[in-house]
Amino acid sequence: MRVLLVGAGGVGAAAVGIAARRDFYEAFVVADYDPQRARAAVAGHEGFLAAQVDASSAAAVAELCREHAITHVLNAVDPRFVMPIFDGAYQAGAHYLDMAMSLSRPHAEEPFSRTGVKLGDEQFAAAGRWLDAGRLALVGMGVEPGLSDVFARYAADHLFSRIDEIGIRDGGNLVVAGYDFAPSFSVWTTIEECLNPPVIWEAGRGWFTTEPLSEPEIFDFPGGIGEVECVHVEHEEVLLIPRWVDAQRVTFKYGLGKEFIDVLKTLHKLGLDRTAPVRVGGVSVSPRDVVAACLPDPAGLGDRMTGSTCAGTLVTGTGLDGRPRSVYLYHVVDNAWSMREYGSQAVVWQTAVNPIVALELLATGAWQGTGVLGPEAFDAVPFLDLLTAYGSPWQLREQ
Amino acid sequence: MRVLLVGAGGVGAAAVGIAARRDFYEAFVVADYDPQRARAAVAGHEGFLAAQVDASSAAAVAELCREHAITHVLNAVDPRFVMPIFDGAYQAGAHYLDMAMSLSRPHAEEPFSRTGVKLGDEQFAAAGRWLDAGRLALVGMGVEPGLSDVFARYAADHLFSRIDEIGIRDGGNLVVAGYDFAPSFSVWTTIEECLNPPVIWEAGRGWFTTEPLSEPEIFDFPGGIGEVECVHVEHEEVLLIPRWVDAQRVTFKYGLGKEFIDVLKTLHKLGLDRTAPVRVGGVSVSPRDVVAACLPDPAGLGDRMTGSTCAGTLVTGTGLDGRPRSVYLYHVVDNAWSMREYGSQAVVWQTAVNPIVALELLATGAWQGTGVLGPEAFDAVPFLDLLTAYGSPWQLREQ
Repeated sequence: MRVLLVGAGGVGAAAVGIAARRDFYEAFVVADYDPQRARAAVAGHEGFLAAQVDASSAAAVAELCREHAITHVLNAVDPRFVMPIFDGAYQAGAHYLDMAMSLSRPHAEEPFSRTGVKLGDEQFAAAGRWLDAGRLALVGMGVEPGLSDVFARYAADHLFSRIDEIGIRDGGNLVVAGYDFAPSFSVWTTIEECLNPPVIWEAGRGWFTTEPLSEPEIFDFPGGIGEVECVHVEHEEVLLIPRWVDAQRVTFKYGLGKEFIDVLKTLHKLGLDRTAPVRVGGVSVSPRDVVAACLPDPAGLGDRMTGSTCAGTLVTGTGLDGRPRSVYLYHVVDNAWSMREYGSQAVVWQTAVNPIVALELLATGAWQGTGVLGPEAFDAVPFLDLLTAYGSPWQLREQ
Repeated sequence: MRVLLVGAGGVGAAAVGIAARRDFYEAFVVADYDPQRARAAVAGHEGFLAAQVDASSAAAVAELCREHAITHVLNAVDPRFVMPIFDGAYQAGAHYLDMAMSLSRPHAEEPFSRTGVKLGDEQFAAAGRWLDAGRLALVGMGVEPGLSDVFARYAADHLFSRIDEIGIRDGGNLVVAGYDFAPSFSVWTTIEECLNPPVIWEAGRGWFTTEPLSEPEIFDFPGGIGEVECVHVEHEEVLLIPRWVDAQRVTFKYGLGKEFIDVLKTLHKLGLDRTAPVRVGGVSVSPRDVVAACLPDPAGLGDRMTGSTCAGTLVTGTGLDGRPRSVYLYHVVDNAWSMREYGSQAVVWQTAVNPIVALELLATGAWQGTGVLGPEAFDAVPFLDLLTAYGSPWQLREQ
């Protein structure tokens, strides 16, 4: 296996640190638009190569793949660049993995009840080509989507005879010292997923949308995190899980907490979430990029951060014994642990470990597949076992 | 009297419409950085001249004054440009009026308890020169500061034997149809005054500061406006009134309402209130300018606006009869009225009418003075009478 990692930001750099402790690949090239950032990510890790790439150009990605005889491209940049990297990998004959899928566009007339272009639609539209070419695009293979999808498949295979609802629940209690407000993940991506119309799936009805940040509920997270306010958010799991797992309903709720929800509502109210440029004095800028520029880079906050982050899948239905059952399968990363072990803050480490586990399963042949597939298209057990072997076990709580 | 109005924004354009109905001046030149905006402000008003000026240059302001033999400069741009216009008027031998004073800088170590550079300090530092030259700088002569200061002087002269507290209270119930959020006044200025440490004056203690947006209280505004949440805000009245009016305490509370207060807190938390440029992609922009660019221009919203705005002065103390008295002196402008009569929205019209009234009092000799003086340095009665004659009466409510 010869890997090209595109994107040496927080998640990319953490992925390098995790992969550096494994030996399932023959080559590992790390490319970024900023060559200095790529060099910084590979510094101190023997055998890793740094490169420069423009991720907005499929041709540039393909050329870099050919130059290094890449077999697998791992996309670790923000979802604006999914399609060129996905297409570039295809053009070069490589397999492809990402942690977020091609972007959605709201329904023009009824954005809060009907779906428009859905997350991943552009990628699934290419599924036939990938299948015909005998190559795999493993999409949504981070922590959420990713591990959350693996949990859904595990529940369907091993815990339930019938599933009423699969509801992803993500929350944490991370606090960053010295800042009034410091998101622990890319604010660009958080705004994107939180202010788009959230999507829900129901058997017999299919996919539909609702109001952003709607149906707040308090969820009690494990790992010492406790109660956090969760709201509906647009997320890939809702688009992926129903394609491979039999459930009556699939939802995603993000434990943003009241403060973050209020911030997002205010940004939207003021138009500061917009990506289209506005004229300011003599220049044009995207307001959302200005918001991101005003906040600290979340990848660099690990040593000021305390607390844990939890990703998990709440499954409700009928157990194998025919009785009602509700289970929360989850994975907690304590920031102190990830900083001590890997020098990465908890959220980016938790995102980065999963595609590396998946790459190793593909390298060993434990996972095999062609076409555009989600994590739930594969057997969950080898994934969960290997994740545990990486030193980061998952857990299960009966509700 | 030969007037140079610097700034053809919302307030400047409204001032032209008001002055156009009076005949106390021989010349009225309207200058803006954008000559098109100056031409638009004078269009349809016979005898008004449009000009271009860089308000950040005292020399450019002085040159324009000399070119037109200006006797009085009226500053209607945002307070960043107070000092060059103030200095330019002085250099050209003109008198000067403004509606906001030179900017403050917080105390470096104890911003929320001690004053640093106060509003107007730079202007008052020049008071000796203006006095020696026999020329007048009438500072803070809009509605607030301005009319609110006139009310304070009126109360001291005609209603009270002893004043315990003079507390300005500003509020409205303006709603802009079609926008989630649309401030009715310059958001740049609103952020400046609301997020700086508010200043308070007390006899025996002098000026001191407190936390931004602190001590919320519900004030019941007249004119059909009703209850609005008011908080401490940095404002010129607190710096002006104690210099000429005897009171035990002077405060300013702005009826921002809960929604606006939350927006300001969020902008501050995210660093989006900052004026210092940040790098975004290949360009540098001031985050506060981006916020302003994302919101509609308040001057252009009059025909989508409904409701009224109220400016007033709450005075508490001992009446002339020796008994406790509390009075709210106020001025309400209904947006429907100001749009119908002048084509200006209520807030900018209410700001603009007061310096025109003051200019007319100076032209007729009813007001005379030299040095750097606030509105409360002059007899309030001719001002209030002339304001009423302009068709916009003030009122008094016993509390």
